Amino acid sequence: MTVIAANPSSPTPIRGARRMPSAGLIADLRARFADRLCTQQAVLLQHGRDESSFAPEPPDAVVYVQNVEEVVFVVQACAQECVPLIGFGSGSSVEGHLLAVEGGVCIDFSRMNRILSISAGDLSATVEAGVTRSQLNLALAQTGLFFSVDPGADATVGGMVATAASGTNSVRYGTMRDNLINLSVVMADGQQLRTASHARKSAAGYNLTQLFCGSEGTLGLITEATVRLHPRSERTAAAVVRFPSVRAAIGCVIESIQFGVPLARAELLDVLTVRAVNAHSHTGLAELPTLFLEFGGSQNHIDEQAAQVGEIAGGHGGDAFCWAHRPEERSRLWTPRHHAYFACLQLRPGCRSMTTDACVPLSRLASCVEETQADIAEHGLTAPILGHVGDGNFHCLVLVDPHRPEEAEAAEAFSRRLIARALRHGGTSTGEHGVGLHKMQYLQAEHGEAGVALMRTIKRALDPHNIFNPGKLAGYR
Amino acid sequence: MTVIAANPSSPTPIRGARRMPSAGLIADLRARFADRLCTQQAVLLQHGRDESSFAPEPPDAVVYVQNVEEVVFVVQACAQECVPLIGFGSGSSVEGHLLAVEGGVCIDFSRMNRILSISAGDLSATVEAGVTRSQLNLALAQTGLFFSVDPGADATVGGMVATAASGTNSVRYGTMRDNLINLSVVMADGQQLRTASHARKSAAGYNLTQLFCGSEGTLGLITEATVRLHPRSERTAAAVVRFPSVRAAIGCVIESIQFGVPLARAELLDVLTVRAVNAHSHTGLAELPTLFLEFGGSQNHIDEQAAQVGEIAGGHGGDAFCWAHRPEERSRLWTPRHHAYFACLQLRPGCRSMTTDACVPLSRLASCVEETQADIAEHGLTAPILGHVGDGNFHCLVLVDPHRPEEAEAAEAFSRRLIARALRHGGTSTGEHGVGLHKMQYLQAEHGEAGVALMRTIKRALDPHNIFNPGKLAGYR
Repeated sequence: MTVIAANPSSPTPIRGARRMPSAGLIADLRARFADRLCTQQAVLLQHGRDESSFAPEPPDAVVYVQNVEEVVFVVQACAQECVPLIGFGSGSSVEGHLLAVEGGVCIDFSRMNRILSISAGDLSATVEAGVTRSQLNLALAQTGLFFSVDPGADATVGGMVATAASGTNSVRYGTMRDNLINLSVVMADGQQLRTASHARKSAAGYNLTQLFCGSEGTLGLITEATVRLHPRSERTAAAVVRFPSVRAAIGCVIESIQFGVPLARAELLDVLTVRAVNAHSHTGLAELPTLFLEFGGSQNHIDEQAAQVGEIAGGHGGDAFCWAHRPEERSRLWTPRHHAYFACLQLRPGCRSMTTDACVPLSRLASCVEETQADIAEHGLTAPILGHVGDGNFHCLVLVDPHRPEEAEAAEAFSRRLIARALRHGGTSTGEHGVGLHKMQYLQAEHGEAGVALMRTIKRALDPHNIFNPGKLAGYR
Repeated sequence: MTVIAANPSSPTPIRGARRMPSAGLIADLRARFADRLCTQQAVLLQHGRDESSFAPEPPDAVVYVQNVEEVVFVVQACAQECVPLIGFGSGSSVEGHLLAVEGGVCIDFSRMNRILSISAGDLSATVEAGVTRSQLNLALAQTGLFFSVDPGADATVGGMVATAASGTNSVRYGTMRDNLINLSVVMADGQQLRTASHARKSAAGYNLTQLFCGSEGTLGLITEATVRLHPRSERTAAAVVRFPSVRAAIGCVIESIQFGVPLARAELLDVLTVRAVNAHSHTGLAELPTLFLEFGGSQNHIDEQAAQVGEIAGGHGGDAFCWAHRPEERSRLWTPRHHAYFACLQLRPGCRSMTTDACVPLSRLASCVEETQADIAEHGLTAPILGHVGDGNFHCLVLVDPHRPEEAEAAEAFSRRLIARALRHGGTSTGEHGVGLHKMQYLQAEHGEAGVALMRTIKRALDPHNIFNPGKLAGYR
């Protein structure tokens, strides 16, 4: 097996030849799964894409599994012919993770969605991979606990583990990586593995749980996860504050974190995004960089946080600190943020967003965003910015007319410059979206030759025949 | 290379033949390091042991490195002859991690101890591996920030990363695993690797940082770490509460966590430990299971936490809730906990402690501790118990007369029963001490054949000639 060096300038991912299942394999799968094996074009197409703008690459078959024994069966059957296997949750990944670039069998986990246990005493829940975050939170409604990871889409837990998802909550509750206790995984030889015990911490050997979190289906198939839960805040309050500059808004968040204010969310909208939400939601916000904040705790504790952040914001020129405590008020106040993505799309009706995902150290965030805004202006792009400020993560929604290929090219060129800039600032090409197909070209610049070589060493050791989601992440042939 | 199956019933670790450096290799090291290469017996002995009760196994040479280039030099020189390499920080590990069971060269990092940068804006610091936690916290004194991981000993950051250390703070601030941003590592071929960017989160490929955290020097040598810092609490308060039973004390902690009280520390002393500290520190505590608690925040927030926990404690029969706010009062109140280890040793003067490290899900902690106390009583052991309740982690200090080998055997037999019990409760053999030599025999019971096989696959892939700390963790030949 030869390791192919990544070509940092090539936007085309490395891919191997298509490895179709034989007629015999399909017959074996049909015998076991009956009508839960699908080969109809519509189903294949639906499973050969995600929320990225890549053209679909359908698998050769889709199997709807219902339990781990079925997963083992499919893995063993496909391993015999070195047929690729791609796990599929809700299809909400955004970097081409799910495309069957070498064909193969897609394992759809959506029907393997039992909540196996909820333990309030352990602040944990064990779920099958196909359980969605909203399904889990509905089941937790009476416990006083909740599952915090929220990437926006109603993703499956298995998918969120595979992509190391995060979102607006992670400034307080951490990312998927921070909320995992244990995983069950089916390996390339069909063996089942539990990555850890159910204890909240352990020093018993290599961290197998974190090896699979963020592995994007390339090392094994996640069938079950035990996740941490958090107590719901007694009360929640929301605030919106406008600032004279992006730098001032970011400065306010950093100083609040340094003061130990446990911000529950801290979302930045740049001027263009504010303009977009005003047009979309008729909100009449001043056209200034704006922070959407959320606080949790007792009423006293919230009041205290409000006073602290209010003072800090004032020191950074923050103005019109607008508060909401009652659920309906909060919901109304946060509406612009919740609708921001769709509002931004309306800046250029008919366009789609090529969404970037740079993440940099907090102290470099203001510079990185300012330089990025200058780049956007210089190249005449329409690219509103949304930021998870507490994580140093921000998204540019580069609006692209699908009928004008030169716009997609310009967006890609912008993305390359942005990632180079994020790396110069000590950051990463992707804070929460993952590598998939789209970011493979940047891995070497980010991790160096030694880092990419090590990732390939791990992949080769765990999946020697390259059956799990081939051609993704640090992909090799 | 053959994988040797672990024998779960054997207390003797698997070990290979001694692999001594050649005279030529020693000469090469001498030429480069002059008097920073030591082969004197006293130095070798000092580097061939840790705080465990294993008899020392000295390396063949000790090199005091001062920078990463020197580490690379030693690794490359030793790799040519497949001579083992063992990283050494402050020698405070407790499971035989540092013993040179196959001989080789010990790399002492204590002189590679520069604090490379402190970034208040990023809430992070980058340090060389030999920096100790107290050294780092001293350097942070004026920043309002601190480094939270505190395993008791004044360990080095490199050592704490290698063993996935934690301690009394982790209920609030997490373990070493949760406080890492980036590592620099020298690999088996002498290549240098940075495991991640400096961003606070990333989804860019496999989690290399967590692969090395807890790897106990078996996959590479950690030369540098970027760690998270936390804001110091505006105020701190301490409390001591006695309970009618261990179960009641644990119930109080679990309920407090479920209510979202951000406990800074929650330490349990069982009756025997209370008796020991009373005798040692003349504290006059009631001989009941006792919780030592710490709270941080603003005065208002602390008052609120106090009221909540007071009410919860009352519901569990907690009594004599004793509070301290001023530093000297807090220090006095916590003295029994701080001196507990030495106080317990005085229960049997001249004995040493064989300290266990089981960790179980919170909901199983009370049962596990109760069953363990019954075991202690049944076998006539003297074994006071200290618990990091919020993590589900507890230590039995089994007091053993070093002149009576049958006591060491009885302690080992107790440890085996305890670990079997912890595993039955869904827990781990080691919450924070690590595997080293001592827990190797339990890895298979904890992780199953698939888990141990995967750990060995990873070890073989990253260190094919088994030069890094051979014979430890999932050790193989």
